[in-house]
Amino acid sequence: MLPAGKITEATIEALAKLMQPGDVIIDGGNTFWQDDVRRGKALRERGLHYVDVGTSGGIWGIERGYCMMIGGDKPVVDRLDPIFKALAPGIGDIPRTSGRDGRDPRIEQGYIHAGPVGAGHFVKMIHNGIEYGLMQAYAEGFDILKNANIEALPADHRFDLDIADIAEVWRRGSVIPSWLLDLTASALAQNHTLDTYSGFVEDSGEGRWTVNAAVDEAVPAEVLTAALYTRFRSRKDHTFAEKILSAMRAGFGGHKEPPKKA
Amino acid sequence: MLPAGKITEATIEALAKLMQPGDVIIDGGNTFWQDDVRRGKALRERGLHYVDVGTSGGIWGIERGYCMMIGGDKPVVDRLDPIFKALAPGIGDIPRTSGRDGRDPRIEQGYIHAGPVGAGHFVKMIHNGIEYGLMQAYAEGFDILKNANIEALPADHRFDLDIADIAEVWRRGSVIPSWLLDLTASALAQNHTLDTYSGFVEDSGEGRWTVNAAVDEAVPAEVLTAALYTRFRSRKDHTFAEKILSAMRAGFGGHKEPPKKA
Amino acid sequence: MLPAGKITEATIEALAKLMQPGDVIIDGGNTFWQDDVRRGKALRERGLHYVDVGTSGGIWGIERGYCMMIGGDKPVVDRLDPIFKALAPGIGDIPRTSGRDGRDPRIEQGYIHAGPVGAGHFVKMIHNGIEYGLMQAYAEGFDILKNANIEALPADHRFDLDIADIAEVWRRGSVIPSWLLDLTASALAQNHTLDTYSGFVEDSGEGRWTVNAAVDEAVPAEVLTAALYTRFRSRKDHTFAEKILSAMRAGFGGHKEPPKKA
Amino acid sequence: MLPAGKITEATIEALAKLMQPGDVIIDGGNTFWQDDVRRGKALRERGLHYVDVGTSGGIWGIERGYCMMIGGDKPVVDRLDPIFKALAPGIGDIPRTSGRDGRDPRIEQGYIHAGPVGAGHFVKMIHNGIEYGLMQAYAEGFDILKNANIEALPADHRFDLDIADIAEVWRRGSVIPSWLLDLTASALAQNHTLDTYSGFVEDSGEGRWTVNAAVDEAVPAEVLTAALYTRFRSRKDHTFAEKILSAMRAGFGGHKEPPKKA
Repeated sequence: MLPAGKITEATIEALAKLMQPGDVIIDGGNTFWQDDVRRGKALRERGLHYVDVGTSGGIWGIERGYCMMIGGDKPVVDRLDPIFKALAPGIGDIPRTSGRDGRDPRIEQGYIHAGPVGAGHFVKMIHNGIEYGLMQAYAEGFDILKNANIEALPADHRFDLDIADIAEVWRRGSVIPSWLLDLTASALAQNHTLDTYSGFVEDSGEGRWTVNAAVDEAVPAEVLTAALYTRFRSRKDHTFAEKILSAMRAGFGGHKEPPKKA
Repeated sequence: MLPAGKITEATIEALAKLMQPGDVIIDGGNTFWQDDVRRGKALRERGLHYVDVGTSGGIWGIERGYCMMIGGDKPVVDRLDPIFKALAPGIGDIPRTSGRDGRDPRIEQGYIHAGPVGAGHFVKMIHNGIEYGLMQAYAEGFDILKNANIEALPADHRFDLDIADIAEVWRRGSVIPSWLLDLTASALAQNHTLDTYSGFVEDSGEGRWTVNAAVDEAVPAEVLTAALYTRFRSRKDHTFAEKILSAMRAGFGGHKEPPKKA
Repeated sequence: MLPAGKITEATIEALAKLMQPGDVIIDGGNTFWQDDVRRGKALRERGLHYVDVGTSGGIWGIERGYCMMIGGDKPVVDRLDPIFKALAPGIGDIPRTSGRDGRDPRIEQGYIHAGPVGAGHFVKMIHNGIEYGLMQAYAEGFDILKNANIEALPADHRFDLDIADIAEVWRRGSVIPSWLLDLTASALAQNHTLDTYSGFVEDSGEGRWTVNAAVDEAVPAEVLTAALYTRFRSRKDHTFAEKILSAMRAGFGGHKEPPKKA
Repeated sequence: MLPAGKITEATIEALAKLMQPGDVIIDGGNTFWQDDVRRGKALRERGLHYVDVGTSGGIWGIERGYCMMIGGDKPVVDRLDPIFKALAPGIGDIPRTSGRDGRDPRIEQGYIHAGPVGAGHFVKMIHNGIEYGLMQAYAEGFDILKNANIEALPADHRFDLDIADIAEVWRRGSVIPSWLLDLTASALAQNHTLDTYSGFVEDSGEGRWTVNAAVDEAVPAEVLTAALYTRFRSRKDHTFAEKILSAMRAGFGGHKEPPKKA
């Protein structure tokens, strides 16, 4: 399986030259699904097969297991089934969902043949888009908790909250437990101010592609997009947009900029 | 424990008249935390105590357990501890978070004394605010998956995806498993079009109060707010805002409105 | 006319004591409209009248004229009409809107009796809410123009644009001319990098109250809210939310934070 | 000048075959700027020139004038200058911006050579993106005014506002006058309920491409994006996302959907 990007492209080209008709290339990286579609078509013309596999589970995948989202022609994916079955996490101790009797048994093993070439990475892309939104929802909630004690609030409306404990208690019977909350509770238990982090947040391609897909489909995706934009903003001192605002305010109101606040 | 709103207000007043100094009123509903603060102060002047308890866990609370977020004076909350301990879900089989040794042991039992009167419902409010954001993140992601097959897309960029299976596979080793995903997978397993739902989505007060709190604290909370606004929008045929847009477009471009789309 | 806030409150109380039944207090500041409602009611019980007047026009009001949005009882507002007429900008050379024959002639003079006490500041509040949204729309557009030349883009998709000239040309026949664009074009003509501004953007109460009103009315107001949140964000180095994101990313992916970018 | 889309593509190909080296094709439609870049390159290889011209001004362009945003090689654009000068609105009675002495005089005539091939449509695209944001800002503000009288509000916090008059008074000395406001005031003067409009709002490509550009440049563009998403949403009865929310709410809370509201 291969990493994403130009190296992938070159490697695929190099591999293709060495392969024989009927051989299969599996791209298990974070490839843009439209590149899969293009490549799959090009390789098919040369008698070669292409299968895209999005995997999720992070660095804990080996321990926790990781699910696979697969795109490719049915006979090819079926042929490779032993590989996917061996890699899949298996049903483990995750409770079964009722109403799934008679459905594709591979799903509960932790892998899915989502559709033709590209579908695997498409589904993985949306997984990551959702992940951004979930992360941002928690992050904003904890931010409001953290700022519940600021001086701008009336004295009897301020709370000095222990957010490490709050994160932990929400793991125990609330409506919002998740693995992401587990990770947050763990990070806060070790350092409740998170002052070892600066707050510069990278984004991978998937978050951007998810927004592109939403736009292409005319699906309103406010939350997934806002989550992406927050990351963009986190990497700047100030945007040019903010300077425009300041310039306008100086123009119509003679407003001067305030000193920087923490 | 009491439901929220005017009934609560009247009941508290009625109760207070029957009580003796040192007695405690527990509000276990979804009260607005600023009402708690006000009431707690009024009752204190009469020698009475007030404790606000936010509970989370939905209708499955009895089965799954539910966590409690408590606000009140320390001696009073300590006095009531046997009640909370009895109601709390207990540590059960939820894995422990490392780094919590020496911290308040009540948290792992599923209840927290978050702070003075009002703090319990404040923390519960943020819990629900986050819940809105998480739900909307999943909802948008599934919406993009669902629309991946529309005719407006180029033919080789369309996918006909089984979102019931996708929801299920994400429960098995991905980065985004959660109880909310379990519920979604369950609903989709039973009816993958969800055509028994119209899509009118109510909001409880907590989502609104969360936005108010963000505004009061000057914390940007795009995702939590967008999640709330989606619900507002879901309950309208069209907004007046949209008619304004149509009127402007007719004005500057002579644009006529398109026919309704599904 | 009076400035907003606690000084107003105290001044009104002091004034009220000196007044005789039938006298009128005019609040021409940026008062929160719910305070107007409360005050109007309290003064009415003492036989006094209260009129709230929102004014708009910024520091150029004397030169450009400024419109007035008035709340109060009809007889009182009518009685004060000579004052408003004298202060109003008059019809000037602003083109008339067709279809207004037979409507309230005061409007074209630049003042409106919007409704009972509080309505004046309510309308002024929404004016400012819209202003935030308009400003942010321009600001984001110029930001995208400004960044059209970054190295992350493919070389043949980069443009080095003169945004001062672009702002100016949009004043001349486009769909988006406005006074706010005039101010932007003027600022950019003098300093096209705006490097004399840092980009810390204050918000007045009106933007926040507008969001509160939207939430109370269950009206989705994404744009007005996003414009407010951008200002909140502009005043922070990093949010706590962003540190939460970094902590989660370290947790599930071992991601390290990138170095700061301009 | 040519309309956008496949017809353009075919027409350009047909034209190119008829042309001689040094000839120029002008695309004056709403073409996607990346198509311009691609075409310009292809034509250049055949010795032909390509110039893209974005125009703005709507159907009133003939009366009000319309500005032009031009992309192309300098010698070619200079050669065509007599055409642009003839079409440009000229300085008219729009006040001059101070600080522009010594700058490109074409700008004040209403046209700009923004950069190489593609730059004209890129600038026009951002113009439209901003337009979406401006429109939505007004639309949301009027929506809040319109709903200020709903029964869900406390009786003494309700206002029955004349939004046609409010739109008009804001044209007269406020901070937010614009041509878009003029159009709104005109529409409301004729029909203050706008009940001849349903509220289905189309979007042209430019709004979507603007979001794509923001994402490519990592510029947070919340307002421009929210304005686009509102249009997407306006064309649906309900989103699938909303059904997912309803399904989740039924799952964790047994919540039933409310009846439809106006």
